[in-house]
Amino acid sequence: MKARIKDLAKELNLSVATISKALKDSHEISPETKKRVLELAARLNYSPNPYASGLRRKNSHTIAVVLPEVADSFFSEAINGIEEVARENGYHVLIYLTHESFLREEAILREFRSGRVDGILISVSGETAQSGHIKAALAEGIPVMFFDRICEDVETTHIITDDFESGYNAAKHLLDKGCKKIAYLAVAANLSVISSRMKGYQKALAENNISAGDLNVIHCSNDIEKNYSVVLDLLNSNNRPDGIIASVEKLTTSIYLACAALKLNIPSDVKVISFTNLHTAVILNPPLTTITQPAFEIGKMAATVLFKALGKRDVALKKQTIVIPSALNIRASTV
Amino acid sequence: MKARIKDLAKELNLSVATISKALKDSHEISPETKKRVLELAARLNYSPNPYASGLRRKNSHTIAVVLPEVADSFFSEAINGIEEVARENGYHVLIYLTHESFLREEAILREFRSGRVDGILISVSGETAQSGHIKAALAEGIPVMFFDRICEDVETTHIITDDFESGYNAAKHLLDKGCKKIAYLAVAANLSVISSRMKGYQKALAENNISAGDLNVIHCSNDIEKNYSVVLDLLNSNNRPDGIIASVEKLTTSIYLACAALKLNIPSDVKVISFTNLHTAVILNPPLTTITQPAFEIGKMAATVLFKALGKRDVALKKQTIVIPSALNIRASTV
Repeated sequence: MKARIKDLAKELNLSVATISKALKDSHEISPETKKRVLELAARLNYSPNPYASGLRRKNSHTIAVVLPEVADSFFSEAINGIEEVARENGYHVLIYLTHESFLREEAILREFRSGRVDGILISVSGETAQSGHIKAALAEGIPVMFFDRICEDVETTHIITDDFESGYNAAKHLLDKGCKKIAYLAVAANLSVISSRMKGYQKALAENNISAGDLNVIHCSNDIEKNYSVVLDLLNSNNRPDGIIASVEKLTTSIYLACAALKLNIPSDVKVISFTNLHTAVILNPPLTTITQPAFEIGKMAATVLFKALGKRDVALKKQTIVIPSALNIRASTV
Repeated sequence: MKARIKDLAKELNLSVATISKALKDSHEISPETKKRVLELAARLNYSPNPYASGLRRKNSHTIAVVLPEVADSFFSEAINGIEEVARENGYHVLIYLTHESFLREEAILREFRSGRVDGILISVSGETAQSGHIKAALAEGIPVMFFDRICEDVETTHIITDDFESGYNAAKHLLDKGCKKIAYLAVAANLSVISSRMKGYQKALAENNISAGDLNVIHCSNDIEKNYSVVLDLLNSNNRPDGIIASVEKLTTSIYLACAALKLNIPSDVKVISFTNLHTAVILNPPLTTITQPAFEIGKMAATVLFKALGKRDVALKKQTIVIPSALNIRASTV
């Protein structure tokens, strides 16, 4: 006969609630107790029945995470945060990558409308300039929440970091270190995060009486080789910046390689700051000053808010913006 | 012809009831008997009555990817490969992270037995030294395929890279560059990939008449701070190596930081090679010589083979090993 939770409880002399929490990997339960419960569950062949409980609760216990890519330290750490909370809550996580394509994102959202998932966490693609596909999912009663890259016009919960302040702090730091001509390397300028960081950068420059005409916003793309040429051209021009802010991680390698190719020293010729959570930032040549985003915390918070809403009869997500601040980590690339 | 329970019973000289209980991992059956039953079931391609579960399982159009972590360039690129093929084939991808815990991996596998997914792609945790949980899933008719980190005793399809040759090539390269004392930094020595790479390293050393007593296998863990102390101690010892092979990406930062702390020059004091797909390898201080694994291709191949099998009436995965070679990329950390 199949073991039930109460069989485990009896055998271990623990409450049913404790067993249930241990099976969900809840932080309320000690590692030792979890280990005992999991070992007994394995021995007695206990397994929850997703169909029985799914029918009763009319849900799939599955959420979708839609994001541009996974080979990026911000998104991979955010997934870690989401997965941790999902596990504790007994949810399964479907991953969908848009590879920065709006058409792909639209197609993915369309599939959810047949009721595969209980909720959606999304960080939109670089091409996403409209939100009809997301509003359509919401209109069908599927909770959708944004993390990091949001659509401002969609009334739901947004979990973000302080991009405006981070852009401001990055530019302010470069100005403090003596930079006179700071370039901001953007990708997909329509993205909330890219434009907020840019506005922060612009504000810092304006405060230092650098006129709008002297702003140096350079548009990059997802093509690493093209980005390399763009950066090379910038650094070869008469208008060569003495400071660069990279709005996304993937631009870092292009900047460092272009400086090396032109024999420009970082930081004495050009100072560099990137938005990234790369663990290797400390061992780059030179170590990289970063705006380090709370990626894991953003993932965790997004999943926590979503599961809390899914636990209620009315799963409507509040219109709210939760902001978790980033940190400026100063290293040799700017000092 | 497809094996039935009574075929298994006859072959093992056991009752049908015993076989049935063993397949359900019942606690009434001894581990030894379970092992015999599961191995035979896997060999004879036994899968349970399709009316009971097979049809339902093949309808979810969902696969599970079970892997240790996502914040690692190998695994994130492998996910990219899997996701690309899944999308083309109309499949959904559930992601489960074991965080290198065997108990967690067991618990995840147990959930699938109630029929959530059509197939499983797994790269096992660092703690996984036995494969009963995987054989149990196979015995219930769920196709399971390994990529990268395999259990050699499970008869199914394994997609790997040439770890032995890569370990050999890494050590050979260091020997060619004049290293006399080469350390191999291992994590989870029971893992197929770690031990294959180590055997390759040992062979290269043996060919150069370096005796087994001079082998320098250092055991690291998943704790970055502990690894840093381990590497620091190694480099501070009388037995200081002049060459280091890092078996996994996450050891790289510890090695570079420990060399910097001790003012050891890479490569003149210590040469360093890592197994990694890091895009930043080229901009490290100094640029890092890597064994670059075909991560994206391994993911793509794994998903392709699985979906091809799922498209057939009989989804049994062949016992086969597909090897996609890695490449040695020589950079300034070794020359």
